[in-house]
Amino acid sequence: MPNRPYTQRDRSVFIVSDGTGITAENFAYAVLTQFEGLRLFQERIPFVDTEDKARETVLRINDAAARDGHRPIVFSTLVNQEINKIIQEATAMHLDLFQQFVEPLETEFGVKSTHTMGRTHHVVNDEAYKNRIEAINFSLAHDDGQTHKDLAIADVILVGVSRSGKTPTSLYLAMQHGIKAANYPLIPEDFERGSLPTALKLYREKLFGLSIMPERLSEIRNERRPNSKYASLENCRYEVAEAERLMRKEAIRSCNTTTKSIEEIATTIITEFGLNTKAY
Amino acid sequence: MPNRPYTQRDRSVFIVSDGTGITAENFAYAVLTQFEGLRLFQERIPFVDTEDKARETVLRINDAAARDGHRPIVFSTLVNQEINKIIQEATAMHLDLFQQFVEPLETEFGVKSTHTMGRTHHVVNDEAYKNRIEAINFSLAHDDGQTHKDLAIADVILVGVSRSGKTPTSLYLAMQHGIKAANYPLIPEDFERGSLPTALKLYREKLFGLSIMPERLSEIRNERRPNSKYASLENCRYEVAEAERLMRKEAIRSCNTTTKSIEEIATTIITEFGLNTKAY
Repeated sequence: MPNRPYTQRDRSVFIVSDGTGITAENFAYAVLTQFEGLRLFQERIPFVDTEDKARETVLRINDAAARDGHRPIVFSTLVNQEINKIIQEATAMHLDLFQQFVEPLETEFGVKSTHTMGRTHHVVNDEAYKNRIEAINFSLAHDDGQTHKDLAIADVILVGVSRSGKTPTSLYLAMQHGIKAANYPLIPEDFERGSLPTALKLYREKLFGLSIMPERLSEIRNERRPNSKYASLENCRYEVAEAERLMRKEAIRSCNTTTKSIEEIATTIITEFGLNTKAY
Repeated sequence: MPNRPYTQRDRSVFIVSDGTGITAENFAYAVLTQFEGLRLFQERIPFVDTEDKARETVLRINDAAARDGHRPIVFSTLVNQEINKIIQEATAMHLDLFQQFVEPLETEFGVKSTHTMGRTHHVVNDEAYKNRIEAINFSLAHDDGQTHKDLAIADVILVGVSRSGKTPTSLYLAMQHGIKAANYPLIPEDFERGSLPTALKLYREKLFGLSIMPERLSEIRNERRPNSKYASLENCRYEVAEAERLMRKEAIRSCNTTTKSIEEIATTIITEFGLNTKAY
């Protein structure tokens, strides 16, 4: 991004965590993309769980400060107070994600936090974690209509034409949310018959349709199979029109994925099915 | 969790966002799991991008406050100031994730933030987003040694015995980080030959091994194929010992996945390969 008036370039950003730092990294990304025209260089330093590693990290941050001529930005999620104290000594602007929220919540709840490290992504024996792994296996086994088996335990069954976004959405729902998501392609045979694949009729309340603009679909398909009938705009128009007609006829809820990211499609589905709640 | 002294039960937590709210949800989870013995009920309210939706959301929060007898906790990431102002009127403890960090960063950078909505998960035309989708397709196509094609463009190739965690890790690396991760099972034929599958020898610098404790492996395999030779502790001990011997012989970097979550395994690999940096 040239021509921007901003002069403080080459700022370093560090994500420092005693766990994976993934949550902090995503959060930092959300905040930093609010600023345009900055040339930022970001590094995630995970598993900073000893005082030695904390001191190494401080050296790295101070090096960057000296090199850049500007103090780095440090987003940290450190539960251990001793380690946190060491990191805070680095020459940097410190954005301490935990302290900023944990302390007010301690007051609000009237209880002390456990200061347990990296609980978010370290939950191997946890029921929720097991559910996620099971959901990933389920979604993989039920990708692209591979099997009708166990559809009764699916949370959601996505339907749509080839390349409408079913596979990445199913995997995302499983991976991030532990939702068992099967997916079925809608194909010319279904359009000719004018009805859903028989295997799906039992599970109408679990179905969710993904649609897409024919122009975008044609683009995506052309990347895979250039100049094929499959990718032609004419064929894409036909398939999308037929798929949408089928969804209307069968009263299947649906959304258009053309300008949506995987996360947005997943969130739309989760909200539609009332899966956006969680108990601790 | 009974027998805990905490009396303020049934607290509602709302994640309010003009985007998907996924980043905020993960963040809230990381913070709230620091508190034990609380019965929290959490709801994510995404796409709050009009004043009408903001007013509906306020009603929902106020309802919960009246029902619980305690003010709810609201984690919000709202870029639009008008919408934010409406939400702030709800009866709640407000944890405004954006303002809390965006404003200090405006001062630090000496530039105003763009206040652009939901940029994190709404990047359909973005190169990074396209990379993620490509990486997902790549990792799916290269799951479980399905093909040797295009290994030259893989970022990482995971190897390990069956059920050591290769598939979920590959998909996670692709989905979250846009890393093209192939994976190959190490099987008895490889152990008998005492060397890597030929297809992998060209790409030794991309290999990363996943190992696991035989006892845990046997548990996992028994869930799939109870009482099989495949799942027997004896066989698991043999396979793990042989796989580890092969990794040592071929000087393949590796980690033990027994007590690690997908995120932790992925983070270990990313750090090992120096992929934990990002430029904006």
